[in-house]
Amino acid sequence: MDNDLHLTQHISKRFNEELEDARNQVMQMGGLVEQQVRNGLKALLEADTELANKVVDLDEQVNQLEIDIDENCTQILARRQPAASDLRLMISIIKTITDLERIGDEAVKLGRNALKLSDDGKNSRQYVELRHLGEHVITILNQALTAYARMDVEDALKIIQSDRLIDEEFDNISRLLITKMMEDPREIKKALRISWCARALERVGDHAKNICEYIVYLVKGKDVRHTSIEEMRRQIQD
Amino acid sequence: MDNDLHLTQHISKRFNEELEDARNQVMQMGGLVEQQVRNGLKALLEADTELANKVVDLDEQVNQLEIDIDENCTQILARRQPAASDLRLMISIIKTITDLERIGDEAVKLGRNALKLSDDGKNSRQYVELRHLGEHVITILNQALTAYARMDVEDALKIIQSDRLIDEEFDNISRLLITKMMEDPREIKKALRISWCARALERVGDHAKNICEYIVYLVKGKDVRHTSIEEMRRQIQD
Repeated sequence: MDNDLHLTQHISKRFNEELEDARNQVMQMGGLVEQQVRNGLKALLEADTELANKVVDLDEQVNQLEIDIDENCTQILARRQPAASDLRLMISIIKTITDLERIGDEAVKLGRNALKLSDDGKNSRQYVELRHLGEHVITILNQALTAYARMDVEDALKIIQSDRLIDEEFDNISRLLITKMMEDPREIKKALRISWCARALERVGDHAKNICEYIVYLVKGKDVRHTSIEEMRRQIQD
Repeated sequence: MDNDLHLTQHISKRFNEELEDARNQVMQMGGLVEQQVRNGLKALLEADTELANKVVDLDEQVNQLEIDIDENCTQILARRQPAASDLRLMISIIKTITDLERIGDEAVKLGRNALKLSDDGKNSRQYVELRHLGEHVITILNQALTAYARMDVEDALKIIQSDRLIDEEFDNISRLLITKMMEDPREIKKALRISWCARALERVGDHAKNICEYIVYLVKGKDVRHTSIEEMRRQIQD
């Protein structure tokens, strides 16, 4: 854990446990949506409708987790009235789970599109364009969740920086799909669906980046959103 | 103001003012992003590049407002340790401004696409498909912000219900654009751009719906996210 973060050692052992439980709940939700994105991509690439349905069905559980964690944080805020880093932890959790829930929504989109693409027939195993982007995004998400677990600011900053690469990959896919559509207008519908999936993946990357910004906020007490990387590094060194 | 919400009358007049200021900041940010969406749509429909640039440039101000309000709420939480409805107000503000900031991001997308479409030449005044969706979304956003100002749960529930209509309009536009692309593949690039704009507008509607859900949470103390309208009405009557 990063040296700058001293989650206050509380006289109440119970309070320590509550904070640790809240953090664990976030990690659990993170693991769940990461698996959901992973399965959504797999369902798409392998035209696996059973897996696609599983991804869609998991949405309810993810949504319920968000509500439970929110409720838990509100209760801690009300009963414990935390200050300083404990308060920042609560706020960062409330923000993080919003992004996790939306990552779940994007995974559901992958699942739904996998079902529709398999309805349209045949085309399994041919979305090479998506595989690379998808695997990249899942790696970023996994790294973001690990950085969250370890409160690792340095890793968080690296991840924020690498989000640009995902945007570039997304642009490349879009260009490729436009060319495909122009060459064969019968492919338009399918290409559009793939482009929706690429957009969903790109948004997962955005949410992972948001989570990393909350890590910096939590550990350093600085709000680095909407700041350039150079400016972020300067700010947290102050 | 809804009868169910009793923002506690505090002995400290200063505390009352702080809460009221925080609410006003949210309203100010809301007004700003509503104007941004309005201008983004106008820039698009009228191929007004000057206005489009204005929309893009406003992003910085919206982002800064989000950071300022967040900071302000954190300080109130730390210093005043609010409970009950005051605590819910703080949490609902922290959540609402995230959605407002993302509405601003969607408006910027409208502005950027307006610039690109005008680069591609001529086509001004022909995106009738977008006009209707855009005006509908702006109405919903305006109603959501009014419901927020008045803490009007009944209006909030109506708005949540009407989001479905926006999704339908979006689907219609998508179908129309696919037909256009198939008929004339030279139009693919332009049609795709219009479809990105439609998607941005649809997402503004989603965020307006989120804000309405926070209104219900704030006033009724119930988390109604991911709940059907019937279930919501049942829950808040308990």
